[in-house]
Amino acid sequence: MQKSKSEVKLMIDQLSLDLIEAQYALKNTRGQDNARSVLVLVGGIEFAGKSEAIKQLREWVDPRYFYVKADIPNEIHSKKIFWQPYVNHIPSHGQMKLFLGNWYTDLMASVLYGPEEISEARFKHYLAEMHQFEHYLQANGVDIIKIWFDLSLETTQKRIRNLDLTKALQRVPDLSWDNFPLSNWRNKKLYDDIQEIRKRFTWDWIIIDGENEKARNLQFAQEILKALRSPALVCHESRPMLQYRPAPIHPQLLEPDTTQLEKKAYKKRIKQLEKSLAHMLRYDPRQIVILFEGMDAAGKGGAIKRIIKYLDPREYQIHCISAPEKYEREKPYLWRFWNKLSNDGSISIFDRSWYGRVLVERVEGLIEPEAWQRAYHEINQFEKSLSLYNTVVIKFWLSISKDEQLIRFRHRENTPQKYFKITDDDWRNRENWDQYLLAASDMFEATHTDLAPWHIVSSNDKYTARIQVLEQIIARLEQD
Amino acid sequence: MQKSKSEVKLMIDQLSLDLIEAQYALKNTRGQDNARSVLVLVGGIEFAGKSEAIKQLREWVDPRYFYVKADIPNEIHSKKIFWQPYVNHIPSHGQMKLFLGNWYTDLMASVLYGPEEISEARFKHYLAEMHQFEHYLQANGVDIIKIWFDLSLETTQKRIRNLDLTKALQRVPDLSWDNFPLSNWRNKKLYDDIQEIRKRFTWDWIIIDGENEKARNLQFAQEILKALRSPALVCHESRPMLQYRPAPIHPQLLEPDTTQLEKKAYKKRIKQLEKSLAHMLRYDPRQIVILFEGMDAAGKGGAIKRIIKYLDPREYQIHCISAPEKYEREKPYLWRFWNKLSNDGSISIFDRSWYGRVLVERVEGLIEPEAWQRAYHEINQFEKSLSLYNTVVIKFWLSISKDEQLIRFRHRENTPQKYFKITDDDWRNRENWDQYLLAASDMFEATHTDLAPWHIVSSNDKYTARIQVLEQIIARLEQD
Repeated sequence: MQKSKSEVKLMIDQLSLDLIEAQYALKNTRGQDNARSVLVLVGGIEFAGKSEAIKQLREWVDPRYFYVKADIPNEIHSKKIFWQPYVNHIPSHGQMKLFLGNWYTDLMASVLYGPEEISEARFKHYLAEMHQFEHYLQANGVDIIKIWFDLSLETTQKRIRNLDLTKALQRVPDLSWDNFPLSNWRNKKLYDDIQEIRKRFTWDWIIIDGENEKARNLQFAQEILKALRSPALVCHESRPMLQYRPAPIHPQLLEPDTTQLEKKAYKKRIKQLEKSLAHMLRYDPRQIVILFEGMDAAGKGGAIKRIIKYLDPREYQIHCISAPEKYEREKPYLWRFWNKLSNDGSISIFDRSWYGRVLVERVEGLIEPEAWQRAYHEINQFEKSLSLYNTVVIKFWLSISKDEQLIRFRHRENTPQKYFKITDDDWRNRENWDQYLLAASDMFEATHTDLAPWHIVSSNDKYTARIQVLEQIIARLEQD
Repeated sequence: MQKSKSEVKLMIDQLSLDLIEAQYALKNTRGQDNARSVLVLVGGIEFAGKSEAIKQLREWVDPRYFYVKADIPNEIHSKKIFWQPYVNHIPSHGQMKLFLGNWYTDLMASVLYGPEEISEARFKHYLAEMHQFEHYLQANGVDIIKIWFDLSLETTQKRIRNLDLTKALQRVPDLSWDNFPLSNWRNKKLYDDIQEIRKRFTWDWIIIDGENEKARNLQFAQEILKALRSPALVCHESRPMLQYRPAPIHPQLLEPDTTQLEKKAYKKRIKQLEKSLAHMLRYDPRQIVILFEGMDAAGKGGAIKRIIKYLDPREYQIHCISAPEKYEREKPYLWRFWNKLSNDGSISIFDRSWYGRVLVERVEGLIEPEAWQRAYHEINQFEKSLSLYNTVVIKFWLSISKDEQLIRFRHRENTPQKYFKITDDDWRNRENWDQYLLAASDMFEATHTDLAPWHIVSSNDKYTARIQVLEQIIARLEQD
């Protein structure tokens, strides 16, 4: 039965009210245990009215808490991870953001008119990567809803015909498909191509029919309302959690090698290595990520110093990672690393890294066991993405004995300009020695992958350790 | 008298200790009233050893609190403000950052080999802009120190000669001057050109002679130490503070025009205007910034809705400005707006803006009088920069009477889906009505400039107000 005008108005008023209340409820999760955010991905056939629906929605919600990112498509290619153009816009806790134009529409535009041909295998690979990425976001507090605006060929063509041609030139440029003249839309082939491509990824999208404008806008708003209200609305195939079983402590952690290198031999060798490495790093066209983990005073800083010895500061970036800032904690935890890796062609060295998730955050009990157990898989995915997109990931654990650490702590305490290197945290971490050994061993077992293997280097003897670090980086660069 | 080896070691140990202590003192200002940060700009003659001095410094300081940004030069041109590539890296409270490569070296590189010729007037203009920008940073908690590494022509040429040519090919690419083959440095002309250009801006820099490597590294570290210890080390010509005198209340604020427009006429006219405006905005090649200020419920949101009526969400960005986040408060206050204006060619609409500094922050006593009085000049400079670099800045104050505001507040309270629009803050702001009138009047007097004039629009009648807003935007776009 047709609703009367006043009934419709009443319903819309109620919908608007519900939307606003849901926005506030989302906003109020900020800083709470249930903190979350909502990301809306929108795509659709041209003329189906996605822009109109978004504008209508903006009038029903509180526009201060509704952020729309809308861009022309980014080209998907093999040297840049598909999420990089979006990293800075991933919503923080309490926020709702809408991406009109997103990794799917980028992929579609790239298939249709990108300069690089995208093979069938590559297309599937991208889709799998995109799902992985969304899965990661959802598991880390970002609920995702995906909405496709569809329209029949008949109506598409009718809407084009109805455009006054002079006015058509004045209408919104087809930013999303700006390589196509409008006349192309009269072409059934293009329409069919788009439908075929989109059907390969919209199986878990909500499809809205753009035929009836009012119904379309209404349904869009109702779907957004649902997403605001129900956490984790869209569930990808759920991955059964592997039963966590502690790994045996890695033998090299229990008894680091203590061979001592003679100073003179060291000096000669390290200089050769420093020079060769600088040369290799400089001319390697890939992005290179080198990260260091290990107990306090294991010699991470000293090793980094040798890597950069013959490099210019313009050639690398060193990131010393400590506890995240508040605004970083309001995003998925890998976010602050995504952010640091968005430059092309650079050398990034991490003094501690994303592995803090399964080391300090686990040992100090800062997160639930479920979160650090899930993190192994998430980190593997992250490193796999990096590796697939032109990045070499080289990971070191510097292993010292507990006795050697004590000697270095005492030395630091007794050397004024090293005193800053030793804090109460370091002594507390030392008390948790065994737990760190366990956490590190679990980490090796779970994250030692073909693409990004761990290099465990005994560092009781600093000279030996530094030589090994440099040799292993060189070997990795030669091998890959 | 020559120092003995052990004396030198003792001195360096002490210097390192002092540096680290100064870093920690800086870090501890975070969250305090005296919160500050330190920005080090570095430039210099090739082969003078700036990279080496930075690497040496990194070994003396605590590297976790010493961030180096080092890039190849950015081209300076007329469509991008010179500070845009650096905005994301402006240090936050407690941080020390070093820019090896900065707006000065960008300017120098652009003069020497940029595609656009830079006239004498333009060069002077850039320098003046750069000083203004630095002045702003310094006044807002970012201490700046500028260091130039110099070297005689003789030594420059000697250092080139001493380079083994095969090794030379392997050395650090001259990233900062990468259009020059190495042989160019044997050319006296290039050396002289660089000296001539740099002397035009290094009058307030610290000049370090790169002749003696040890002395150079030591002096560099000592200068950094001084900067860490003494706030506002580098003082530009000080600008006498204008004596603040309250402006008379603007008559249009006291008695907004109340002419009422008939609905039918409004509907017809607004539609024409919405369409013309959309067309003009779409095809205007400049960046366009439209901002709205005014009392609560003055109709800012409604006016914005009409501006975007016939635009696609991909064509504009709406920013609703409220109180800054903590991480934003740790940077100069204009930073969060710089950040939002870094996209080219876009349309940015602000529902409230940087004028919060001289409105709410002033009225609520959130900052010292000195800060908001200084802000007028700072905002003018900011808008001038925008205007000079291809941006149209259009500013509206929507003026309603106190009685009309009450009517609208009551209406909001009685309309469920508008209820969110009215908060305790709104009622408190209403109590401060007269102070806001004074603050607004002062603001008009101080920031109504030729490049970015204010448009005061009476908005007791919403229809009239919206028509006027659209007409005035159209007039501004046609005129400029």
